[in-house]
Amino acid sequence: MEKYSIGIDFGTAEVRAMLADGRGNCVRQASSTYPHGVMTEYLHDGTRLPEGFALQHPADYVECLCAVLREISAGEPDKMQAVAGIGIDFTQCTMMPVDAQGEPLCFQENFCHEPYAYAKLWKHHGAEAQAEKMTLAARERKEKFLPFYGGKIYAESMFPKILETYEKALEVYRAADQFTELADWIPRWLTGTKRRSLSIAGCAALWNPETGYPSEEYFEAAAKGFGKVAKEKMTEDLVPVGEPVGYLTADKARLLGLPEGIPVAAGLGDCQAAFVGSGISQEHILLSVMGTSSCDMLVHEKGVGVPGMYGVSFGSILPDKYGYEAGQATMGDLLGWFTKTCVPGEYTEEARRRGISIFDYLNTLAEEYEPGETGLLALDWWSGNRSVLLDTDLSGMILGMNMDTKCWEIYRALAESLAFGKRMIVEQFEAFGIHIEKLYVTGGVANKNPFLMQMFSDVLGMPVGVSEAENGSCLGSAIYGMAAGKGYESLEQAAKAMGRGVEKMYLPREEKKAAYDTLYREYSTLYQYFGRENKVMKTLKALAGRGK
Amino acid sequence: MEKYSIGIDFGTAEVRAMLADGRGNCVRQASSTYPHGVMTEYLHDGTRLPEGFALQHPADYVECLCAVLREISAGEPDKMQAVAGIGIDFTQCTMMPVDAQGEPLCFQENFCHEPYAYAKLWKHHGAEAQAEKMTLAARERKEKFLPFYGGKIYAESMFPKILETYEKALEVYRAADQFTELADWIPRWLTGTKRRSLSIAGCAALWNPETGYPSEEYFEAAAKGFGKVAKEKMTEDLVPVGEPVGYLTADKARLLGLPEGIPVAAGLGDCQAAFVGSGISQEHILLSVMGTSSCDMLVHEKGVGVPGMYGVSFGSILPDKYGYEAGQATMGDLLGWFTKTCVPGEYTEEARRRGISIFDYLNTLAEEYEPGETGLLALDWWSGNRSVLLDTDLSGMILGMNMDTKCWEIYRALAESLAFGKRMIVEQFEAFGIHIEKLYVTGGVANKNPFLMQMFSDVLGMPVGVSEAENGSCLGSAIYGMAAGKGYESLEQAAKAMGRGVEKMYLPREEKKAAYDTLYREYSTLYQYFGRENKVMKTLKALAGRGK
Repeated sequence: MEKYSIGIDFGTAEVRAMLADGRGNCVRQASSTYPHGVMTEYLHDGTRLPEGFALQHPADYVECLCAVLREISAGEPDKMQAVAGIGIDFTQCTMMPVDAQGEPLCFQENFCHEPYAYAKLWKHHGAEAQAEKMTLAARERKEKFLPFYGGKIYAESMFPKILETYEKALEVYRAADQFTELADWIPRWLTGTKRRSLSIAGCAALWNPETGYPSEEYFEAAAKGFGKVAKEKMTEDLVPVGEPVGYLTADKARLLGLPEGIPVAAGLGDCQAAFVGSGISQEHILLSVMGTSSCDMLVHEKGVGVPGMYGVSFGSILPDKYGYEAGQATMGDLLGWFTKTCVPGEYTEEARRRGISIFDYLNTLAEEYEPGETGLLALDWWSGNRSVLLDTDLSGMILGMNMDTKCWEIYRALAESLAFGKRMIVEQFEAFGIHIEKLYVTGGVANKNPFLMQMFSDVLGMPVGVSEAENGSCLGSAIYGMAAGKGYESLEQAAKAMGRGVEKMYLPREEKKAAYDTLYREYSTLYQYFGRENKVMKTLKALAGRGK
Repeated sequence: MEKYSIGIDFGTAEVRAMLADGRGNCVRQASSTYPHGVMTEYLHDGTRLPEGFALQHPADYVECLCAVLREISAGEPDKMQAVAGIGIDFTQCTMMPVDAQGEPLCFQENFCHEPYAYAKLWKHHGAEAQAEKMTLAARERKEKFLPFYGGKIYAESMFPKILETYEKALEVYRAADQFTELADWIPRWLTGTKRRSLSIAGCAALWNPETGYPSEEYFEAAAKGFGKVAKEKMTEDLVPVGEPVGYLTADKARLLGLPEGIPVAAGLGDCQAAFVGSGISQEHILLSVMGTSSCDMLVHEKGVGVPGMYGVSFGSILPDKYGYEAGQATMGDLLGWFTKTCVPGEYTEEARRRGISIFDYLNTLAEEYEPGETGLLALDWWSGNRSVLLDTDLSGMILGMNMDTKCWEIYRALAESLAFGKRMIVEQFEAFGIHIEKLYVTGGVANKNPFLMQMFSDVLGMPVGVSEAENGSCLGSAIYGMAAGKGYESLEQAAKAMGRGVEKMYLPREEKKAAYDTLYREYSTLYQYFGRENKVMKTLKALAGRGK
């Protein structure tokens, strides 16, 4: 009997689920949008939220999860008995406090108006001060885990977010039995187990196979009274990727129209899931998931601390290799910002007249240029810099404008800055012995913007392959689900059989190289200057904050 | 009998003339637009022009001059006998070659297709390399005149433009009896005299009372064979401002409908003329003529070399004082560029709906902000930097953008950068002992943009007075004309009697000071970095040039 698996991908705005067959074909898919979306200014009850907050309501996750699984089970009832396993991925660094039964604290009457009892989305930026404290303590104590997180505790990661709650809402911290990533909580909801994913622990919670979570002494040094956080609030019964964390309980099976006992794989971050979903299981390929921002991953047999890369963790993508993670905080959304903020009506009109998107129209104008011809150069830090600087306080910069500068020239310079940012990441990996031969790209921007893909290839001087997977994360989760259910002998075999190949390959054009190299050198100088020497961006951000 | 005078102001696009009475009231005015305008890509006969060229056809000057004077003489025939004198100002640094009779070389059949035989407009940028050579030679020879021109020979000034012709079109150079600023040529055309204005010689041609024009040795050091340029091509019979350079000839008087023998005053630059037109004859006031760009002037009893100020010359504005000149290469045109290039249709639409200009609409949005609240900072170098850096290869810069940045926030940051640029000029004067108490402003931007005027006052921390003179240059020329015709005993008396006062005074608001001071410190750091340390703007400009 042919085997199937279900992959479930929790994004920032919606849940997508896919029933895949053993060759990775999508048999049926479903999606469902979170009713409350992302809460940034107000909680759903009207409670005002501080600047930088980004919360979600966990009831949305359950509601949408039920909706997509019921849609799939109702649509393909005959195939449900043949589902080997379920895999789950979730936006990484989204976390929340739960009680001893695993219920979100915000479901309790006494916490339902308390923002800190809700899920903090990955992009919740309330824990900068806490991240800084934790970084300082780790540096002072020369903690061995630090180099594996780029030398800096990332403000979006688990422990700074817990420390924020500890400092700002102690009663929530005390009431929490556990703090959990949602990639662990969804499997717990389905299976009732408290076991967690080894991948998630490594990527988001400073865990490593040699020493486990950081020590009580370290946490106490970071904040008084915070020492026992890992021991008390984070179970350490960890499951490798591609293995079952538990089995679907009878009541959830009934609720969802699925058979009881289906293996549920250990959860992953959405980007990690996209890696195998794009058919990659070898070294030397950097996979970039390009949507609003960009997440870059690769696997390598050795674990090397690369400064500025916020995750090097064993087993985070494949069970026997180190997974490396880097990223750019803006990608598609930078071009989106530009088209909304800086493009005169005549161009949006003309795009409409031609029946194409404003992006496609600006692409046609911008691609007429040779590298350097605009005279412009930008730093792509509109949302801060994720790799190599790990600094959310940085901001965008553009220079070279004169009275003849056109809006599509600025658009081109912004596109180039994204490619230069990627090259900075690649060169940092290379400098620490992690060799990269090709870039694979998946996500919304990959298919929609051939102009950008060719530019990335020219700037990087390497082939850029666009994955044919439409939703690499979702398919990746289905692969992990299949592996957990032993539909194939190993995760690698499942990945090879089910992962998608490359739909289109862009090759670097030699004649563009010299000018891009010159521009990149200038970009690097400014990167160093504004990233490390002149603190003007931080000064301006602080000043702007005071004004509001 | 009441006395009158005529002021004639030659701008970049048109000639304006004014018949003024003895109290400076405008009795009649006229204007006339140059038929050929500014020729930048092609000569009027279709000859392709090199990048950076900006030529004018001298026939236009004559045609328009005749038109405006005939209109005035025909309109007020009774008052023509009472015209005490005529004053002329012209865009400074506009120059051309003429033959022994004073006829433009381009009027000759053998030179009419030769671009170098036409008038090079002030903003003709073909002599950068020549200016650099001349600067180097002056530095090596420690020429004493150099500090009085900001330590740099400005590429728009007379001798680099002559050297450009010498190097690029030797036959034109050889055929020229004289090279002349147009501010000297118009009086020559009216009076037949070869005498020149002392003001023009000092401002544009490196002349000073002690040593005259630079030496033959210096010019020869700058370029082989160029040594005799001043001796052979530049008469040195100079007339101070407010004195007659000659008298209206009989044939021109007939042509124009004016009495023969009217004194014609020594010509001036248009900005110098605006100084007395704005009623200023004292020290410690900086007058800023703000149009597309900005020209800043003041008078002082001492002559001090101030680095980065391109003109310190005795008698250039008032006969017994040193005139200082500085400038910003962009002003209104930077905001104009922005509204054309970077403002989405919804804002231009809304401005139209409200029946106001896009500038006024953006002003209303931008003036809601506290200083620093945008989080943005810009360098106002879209057309290079005139003072303090004297560098046309610099370009614009803006930083601090994030995903929430709005287009009117960028607009505000650009406006602030203009104010910071002005403060840089004021502080440079102060650092060299030239004290400034107030800024007076005239020109198109002054009346149209109260938002900008208040911002200048806040940033500078000094009162900013908007002159009530509608056309300060034209009125200024009328004042010089009146003085030349002895309508008053002295130029100062004429200026006091006829110059306009201040229409509106903006006072600095103490509560804005701290934030602007912080922003200005950051601006200064970036000014230093991009102006003197990191040559990226030059590299980008060179690269862009190669691409075209």
